[in-house]
Amino acid sequence: MKKVLFATTALVLTAGVAAAEVTVSGDGRMGVRYDGQKFDADGIETVGNEWNFNSRARVTFTLSGQTDGGLEFGGSFRADQAGDSAASNGAAYGLEGSVYISGAFGKIEMGDVVGASEALFGDFYEVGYSDLTSVGGTMIVGELSDDIPYLTGDNGGFVWGNVKSALAVTPTSSGSALTTTTVDVAYSSGPNLLYTGTFGAFSVAASMSDGKAGGADASQEYAVAAAYTFGGNYTVGMGYEVVDADVADVDMLTLAGVAKFGNTSVKAAVSKLGKDADANYYGLGFSSVFGATTVGGYVQKVDDKSTDNEDVTWYGLGAEYDLGGGAVVKGGIADNDLSGTDAVADLGIKFSF
Amino acid sequence: MKKVLFATTALVLTAGVAAAEVTVSGDGRMGVRYDGQKFDADGIETVGNEWNFNSRARVTFTLSGQTDGGLEFGGSFRADQAGDSAASNGAAYGLEGSVYISGAFGKIEMGDVVGASEALFGDFYEVGYSDLTSVGGTMIVGELSDDIPYLTGDNGGFVWGNVKSALAVTPTSSGSALTTTTVDVAYSSGPNLLYTGTFGAFSVAASMSDGKAGGADASQEYAVAAAYTFGGNYTVGMGYEVVDADVADVDMLTLAGVAKFGNTSVKAAVSKLGKDADANYYGLGFSSVFGATTVGGYVQKVDDKSTDNEDVTWYGLGAEYDLGGGAVVKGGIADNDLSGTDAVADLGIKFSF
Amino acid sequence: MKKVLFATTALVLTAGVAAAEVTVSGDGRMGVRYDGQKFDADGIETVGNEWNFNSRARVTFTLSGQTDGGLEFGGSFRADQAGDSAASNGAAYGLEGSVYISGAFGKIEMGDVVGASEALFGDFYEVGYSDLTSVGGTMIVGELSDDIPYLTGDNGGFVWGNVKSALAVTPTSSGSALTTTTVDVAYSSGPNLLYTGTFGAFSVAASMSDGKAGGADASQEYAVAAAYTFGGNYTVGMGYEVVDADVADVDMLTLAGVAKFGNTSVKAAVSKLGKDADANYYGLGFSSVFGATTVGGYVQKVDDKSTDNEDVTWYGLGAEYDLGGGAVVKGGIADNDLSGTDAVADLGIKFSF
Repeated sequence: MKKVLFATTALVLTAGVAAAEVTVSGDGRMGVRYDGQKFDADGIETVGNEWNFNSRARVTFTLSGQTDGGLEFGGSFRADQAGDSAASNGAAYGLEGSVYISGAFGKIEMGDVVGASEALFGDFYEVGYSDLTSVGGTMIVGELSDDIPYLTGDNGGFVWGNVKSALAVTPTSSGSALTTTTVDVAYSSGPNLLYTGTFGAFSVAASMSDGKAGGADASQEYAVAAAYTFGGNYTVGMGYEVVDADVADVDMLTLAGVAKFGNTSVKAAVSKLGKDADANYYGLGFSSVFGATTVGGYVQKVDDKSTDNEDVTWYGLGAEYDLGGGAVVKGGIADNDLSGTDAVADLGIKFSF
Repeated sequence: MKKVLFATTALVLTAGVAAAEVTVSGDGRMGVRYDGQKFDADGIETVGNEWNFNSRARVTFTLSGQTDGGLEFGGSFRADQAGDSAASNGAAYGLEGSVYISGAFGKIEMGDVVGASEALFGDFYEVGYSDLTSVGGTMIVGELSDDIPYLTGDNGGFVWGNVKSALAVTPTSSGSALTTTTVDVAYSSGPNLLYTGTFGAFSVAASMSDGKAGGADASQEYAVAAAYTFGGNYTVGMGYEVVDADVADVDMLTLAGVAKFGNTSVKAAVSKLGKDADANYYGLGFSSVFGATTVGGYVQKVDDKSTDNEDVTWYGLGAEYDLGGGAVVKGGIADNDLSGTDAVADLGIKFSF
Repeated sequence: MKKVLFATTALVLTAGVAAAEVTVSGDGRMGVRYDGQKFDADGIETVGNEWNFNSRARVTFTLSGQTDGGLEFGGSFRADQAGDSAASNGAAYGLEGSVYISGAFGKIEMGDVVGASEALFGDFYEVGYSDLTSVGGTMIVGELSDDIPYLTGDNGGFVWGNVKSALAVTPTSSGSALTTTTVDVAYSSGPNLLYTGTFGAFSVAASMSDGKAGGADASQEYAVAAAYTFGGNYTVGMGYEVVDADVADVDMLTLAGVAKFGNTSVKAAVSKLGKDADANYYGLGFSSVFGATTVGGYVQKVDDKSTDNEDVTWYGLGAEYDLGGGAVVKGGIADNDLSGTDAVADLGIKFSF
């Protein structure tokens, strides 16, 4: 149900000739969410405890064009990501959204792009109409959602928050001061670069940051990944990601596989975090389609051996029913095994325009 | 003059089948405004005293779709309300704009919606091309404009600023600390819910907040309203609104009526603010259309018996001339009987695209 | 390649009847930029020293309509300029973008408009795909780019930063405190007004600010300019700009000329900054088109006699190759003769949609 707003010229040109154009599409959601609970050491509730209203409306701009030589180019960002010209954020400054050029050689994107591993393997089925994130503790994994915690790219700084913060060099500091609060700034100075290409049954990807944040040196990110599809329904792949900071380095090797069995798709990923860190990650997810109904879920675990030997398992289960025309009824529940927290759950309607 | 940007599919589908789509419309204005004056106790001017340039340009996104079962859904927000993804505000977070589903049962909206009373009775004729608000003092009514000061909904926190602030519980505080500055946060944690329905000559509405602000308990708002239309040109109605805070409660009963006599429409509203507050409100407004010319105005009064027995009367008068094509020349003047302030006035052109 | 999104009504009306409409277009860029270097007195590098990724994606809304009497009206702003409704900035508050009415009398614009001189004479060829600004020192000229440093209008506050800051009255201060940091606020309180008209070979322009910033008195800006075009390819003009502050006044007289010789366009400007300031400006720029290739550059100099007799010369040279369809490969280099700084350079692709 995406909107294609024809350019003037497109209306009079013959079919097949693409004109540079801006497409406007949208999405929305409304419903209720139980925001979970969190308790302090004395059992006193500190966060949430009731059902809340949760809604939103967004618009996405999709830009596309083609050079005379057949090179395709374009970009995409949401209205809320446009950026505030008074504050140097958003797509107008390369910090959200992205632009690309593509051709037979593949696709080169720049902006707030994902890392190479995420580009090829993606994440798990999105649980809940409001994309549930279970209530976390002070773990090494920042956000416990249906996202696979890759090391680099758009969510790198958040997901491996504590691991990375232990290694982070504050970009505005002249020395090597450690920080636990400016992780994302130090690691995602943006824009970043992503290359993806598909050649027959093989897909490859490479990504990197420019190692700068606010004009100062920051840790460098780079990643490569490859995937092979066989039998039409089976894909296996491997990705390698590195964060290279002044005081320490971290790398991550990820093995991933996707298989389709009839109406069901299963995805698995295993990662080893190494160098100056030491942790293992295991994730398994699925989604099944039965007519207008889809169900899906995931279970993920991080076993951290570097910081106090912490580990966490988190999981989610959701379902949706397609009402047609771009509307879906959707709900889910997500939780983890951290003490002092309660599950989160939601039920609502999602719209796409 | 609103823009309907057809979806690709809509162009090839037969008429009558609605496709999910995004409509882009806009508005603008330019002119001059006399921003009034305000004097301190010694007669020294402290605010404004000259004509100022005043202009703006805005774009509105309207989202709409229909499920296979005939349920309609959509939403709306302005580009400046999209929200900054770095700051958790705007329509992307349910704090501005709104989304809805509607059918034979009525319409359910969520987001930055109005309260039940305002949904049925509305406000007075907008005075001035720049929506004039007279220069207020430190009264219980926050904004003295052509808006009727309903207790709940999108403008609740502002209008009854001082009454509500005296009752407000700071949402980030663990105790019951009173605050005079964070009223709107405490009362409009958003998104809120609004139901409206019309059944024959009867219209009904109900609205509520979820009683949460930033994850903490906040005062709860809820409201119900009903209206009856007879003889085609006469509507009478009643609304009841409640703000339920920890330290105190306030309610408001509003009686409203609208009558059309030829080219002239007259609206009257009377409210009683009660429970832990004690104030009366009276408002009367009109608008008349003579060909391309429209004139309108209002007079409103609040008699507050709870805080130092203050009262204020404010009024406005405006006119506009339609140039056609979406352009209108419009001007107005607004003032109040507070000492130490001067009238505000404006004259300019309004555009709709 | 701009997008024209037809209004519903436009689709059924006969050609020639303009309906109010909103047009959505876009631009993007991606590439690498060498951000130059800056050293402190001890030769220690303080800013930049490597190639950085630089990308962005933007969308522009263009509003247009026509009254029944034939008066045209409209406006324009980018999505990132829409303004954050929680922060009173952007086009929704007249501080970015602009609106206009136009007819046989000329065009009246209000908003974040340029001054009269810039409206008629413009700036030089934009050097680099990312609009390079050479690394400046603590000179009287704030930004050393391909912009001509006019005294008033949208870039007035930045360009003549130090000169103007020495004269600025802090708008929030009750006294006449000097400031070096809030220059732009004091001088560009916005919205401002711009009139332009063309009558045969003559073009005229006038602009002014309303002398207010945040409700308080601020310095007043006004400017007039005129240009005469002869022989089809030659234009000469003169502009006079004034900034009138409480503590001091500054004016600027600018002579400008543009000539086209075949594929080459040359622009020259000379300014005299006077009253309570004393500086001269000289600028020369060119651009040449050879098929799909365009080259251009500029050299500019400010000789400041009022503040420590400083002077600075800055220059830039760039080239671009049109790939067709809205994509251009473009690069450039810019530098200045300030000590302790290095050149900046870039190479990338620019897109228009």
